[in-house]
Amino acid sequence: MERTITRDAHLHVGKTIEVKGWLHKKRLLGGLTFINVRDRAGLVQVVIKDKDEVEKLRGLQVGTVLAVSGQVTSEERAPGGAELHDAKITVLVPVTDEPPIEIDKPLGHKPDNLETLFDNRVIGLRNLQERAIFEIQATVTKSIRSHFDAHHFTEMHTPKLLAEATEGGAEVFTLDYFGKIATLAQSPQFYKQMMVGVFERAYEIAPVYRAEASATTRHMTEYTSVDGEMGFITLEDLKSFLSGLLNAVVDEVWAAHEPELKRWNTTKPVLPAEIPTISMAEIHEKYSKATGENSVGEKDLRPDEERWICEYAKKNLGSEAVFVSEWPASEMKFYHKANEQNPEIADRVDLLFRGVEITTGSMRENVYAKVVQQLKDLAHGDPEDPGFLPLLNAMRYGMPPHGGFGLGLERLTQKLIGLNNVKEATLFPRDINRLAP
Amino acid sequence: MERTITRDAHLHVGKTIEVKGWLHKKRLLGGLTFINVRDRAGLVQVVIKDKDEVEKLRGLQVGTVLAVSGQVTSEERAPGGAELHDAKITVLVPVTDEPPIEIDKPLGHKPDNLETLFDNRVIGLRNLQERAIFEIQATVTKSIRSHFDAHHFTEMHTPKLLAEATEGGAEVFTLDYFGKIATLAQSPQFYKQMMVGVFERAYEIAPVYRAEASATTRHMTEYTSVDGEMGFITLEDLKSFLSGLLNAVVDEVWAAHEPELKRWNTTKPVLPAEIPTISMAEIHEKYSKATGENSVGEKDLRPDEERWICEYAKKNLGSEAVFVSEWPASEMKFYHKANEQNPEIADRVDLLFRGVEITTGSMRENVYAKVVQQLKDLAHGDPEDPGFLPLLNAMRYGMPPHGGFGLGLERLTQKLIGLNNVKEATLFPRDINRLAP
Repeated sequence: MERTITRDAHLHVGKTIEVKGWLHKKRLLGGLTFINVRDRAGLVQVVIKDKDEVEKLRGLQVGTVLAVSGQVTSEERAPGGAELHDAKITVLVPVTDEPPIEIDKPLGHKPDNLETLFDNRVIGLRNLQERAIFEIQATVTKSIRSHFDAHHFTEMHTPKLLAEATEGGAEVFTLDYFGKIATLAQSPQFYKQMMVGVFERAYEIAPVYRAEASATTRHMTEYTSVDGEMGFITLEDLKSFLSGLLNAVVDEVWAAHEPELKRWNTTKPVLPAEIPTISMAEIHEKYSKATGENSVGEKDLRPDEERWICEYAKKNLGSEAVFVSEWPASEMKFYHKANEQNPEIADRVDLLFRGVEITTGSMRENVYAKVVQQLKDLAHGDPEDPGFLPLLNAMRYGMPPHGGFGLGLERLTQKLIGLNNVKEATLFPRDINRLAP
Repeated sequence: MERTITRDAHLHVGKTIEVKGWLHKKRLLGGLTFINVRDRAGLVQVVIKDKDEVEKLRGLQVGTVLAVSGQVTSEERAPGGAELHDAKITVLVPVTDEPPIEIDKPLGHKPDNLETLFDNRVIGLRNLQERAIFEIQATVTKSIRSHFDAHHFTEMHTPKLLAEATEGGAEVFTLDYFGKIATLAQSPQFYKQMMVGVFERAYEIAPVYRAEASATTRHMTEYTSVDGEMGFITLEDLKSFLSGLLNAVVDEVWAAHEPELKRWNTTKPVLPAEIPTISMAEIHEKYSKATGENSVGEKDLRPDEERWICEYAKKNLGSEAVFVSEWPASEMKFYHKANEQNPEIADRVDLLFRGVEITTGSMRENVYAKVVQQLKDLAHGDPEDPGFLPLLNAMRYGMPPHGGFGLGLERLTQKLIGLNNVKEATLFPRDINRLAP
């Protein structure tokens, strides 16, 4: 099954090798025909002199599938530092239709051509710079899993088909389930907490669904959620875990994809081993003082404030990420835990990275009587509701102090690469207006 | 964040350590109180002499969350070969309600108590033998990913929300999508093929949805599908890849979980490096001869035939898995590829393992004109249908010979452990009658 792939061509200088791939570019230069052949590893340049060989490509378009054999010659200016000479071409699958989108030069990513980009995704992803986004995303995923594994988490698969919506009300998709109503999971929140009672540390990387009725650069109706939950920890432990996670992702992604990341004009994020923490009150105060806008006393951060504090942390704390702590307890979800010393604040941190929140982490209320009370008080929920009962039973039959987080894989990829819209970091994005391709 | 976990207790003989976990069992023996404490790694036995310490546990039930410190003493009969003496108990979270299901002895897995098992899943999974199923499943997943990685596949995340059902008609869930109709993906089939044009080799492990209206031991409405697709391969390459994959899974799972697998009374599957292949016609012939049942000429295997041929291969070919080849072309899906030498058969193999099909692998028709024709002839589909257009465009703009497979993670786990019902190998199973917990 193995054959020479384009990336390895330079290992065979002086020898004749065969590569298989797609015609990516064709041009005439000084009487010679140059083609680039693309495969899973990259590009190789092929120089064709022989008129009969050139003839084989007549009328064929980019995308034509080829086997090309030739002698490997060092050539600094060629991709990979080598090119194939005296090439013999075998056309495996001819393409005669011109592709709907040019793939051998950077595709535009301006707001007003994104829809065209997504409409032509199937072919557009053959562009190497586009493809790199998702190769980077695969490395992000892999490094996240390694970090979970190294910390003894068990991977799990929880159902996305649920009987009722338990979190948030409006933004839930419902479907006909053999005459009953089912909903699509907005998060594995309750399952990951319940599984702390089983695995102690559990994680899942899987799709979640939000019936987001607005088309924004930040929201999609389906995305890949990275969820982790740990027992026997404190909020400080959770912060350490997340600091380690983001550092590991950044290091592994840069080690594997530095050239591609540079082509996207992004820099390696500066991050200390432990990401700094600033309380919400302190952010409001600093921001108000610096900008003249008064946010003091507000119960959330303004989007502009998120950007501002990230700039502040980058300049003053040497960190492109920052934890926001001391969220008001009045904004808690019913399963969140209030701080024991100061019940006015929640044991929650949001992790901001390059101007946006990429994850919310919190400790969960693990005492049965308290979580039942919070369900009634904060969510006006019924403890006998079958949507809540499994979570409450986990507490009733013994749950340790625990906490966890959820993180959007596409948003993290977006911020690492420096893309403006989360959909650019999504293979086939879904929003209110888009269900295809 | 790290502390001593039960599995490591024996490393500290003579020292005093602290473990945190759940009260798993309590009994009195010869005037002493013995408790088992469970954590993510297993169990440790604790011997309590001090009356004040025993008193702390009065009235508390299994599930109570504890911190226990004690001196580590070698004890062959204790789990892990060590126990804690002179224990000091701290009750972190008391549990006073008796659990709905006993978790310190094997739970029944008889057909008529499975519903009770699933109703009590949240607590029942705290049973170590139940938990082991999903620890094994996590290792299955990890070894599959390693195998994909080693063969240069790119991991991807494709959407499960689709505009229309493209594969199979009836068994599709539909939902209201902002006033339009959306469907839930039954498989990432078209996406994985399209992504061969981008990554050449792509894989995904994610949920898929089937509106299966019947309650059987084999079908669920949601399961985890392992999908892989490769370009520039032959059917023989695909068989080699699958042989390597199943061998890798078996070896890694047995290396990591032999004691748990033995407790489930299963044996390590016997598998040669290359799994043997038998044609469908030959199976029909052998089966008919051996059993007196006549299946010759049938276009599929009977369930009993699948079991029989697996027994046959185990006895005569030294393999608990077998590829079934030479499927009739008349049974092809429109995207399948007919054999070039013999267009009466499809380039497809089913992989049977321990009596059931665990994966279907096939080569795909990659020539644009042919796949358009097959869509019309075999599926009565319209090439302009937006549900088919992206796949057809991939072919139109150049696709190499390619093939792939889909494999149900839960079914593979089930057969490795020797469970009767696929739902036993599913954390929270979903079928026509079950949407909770």
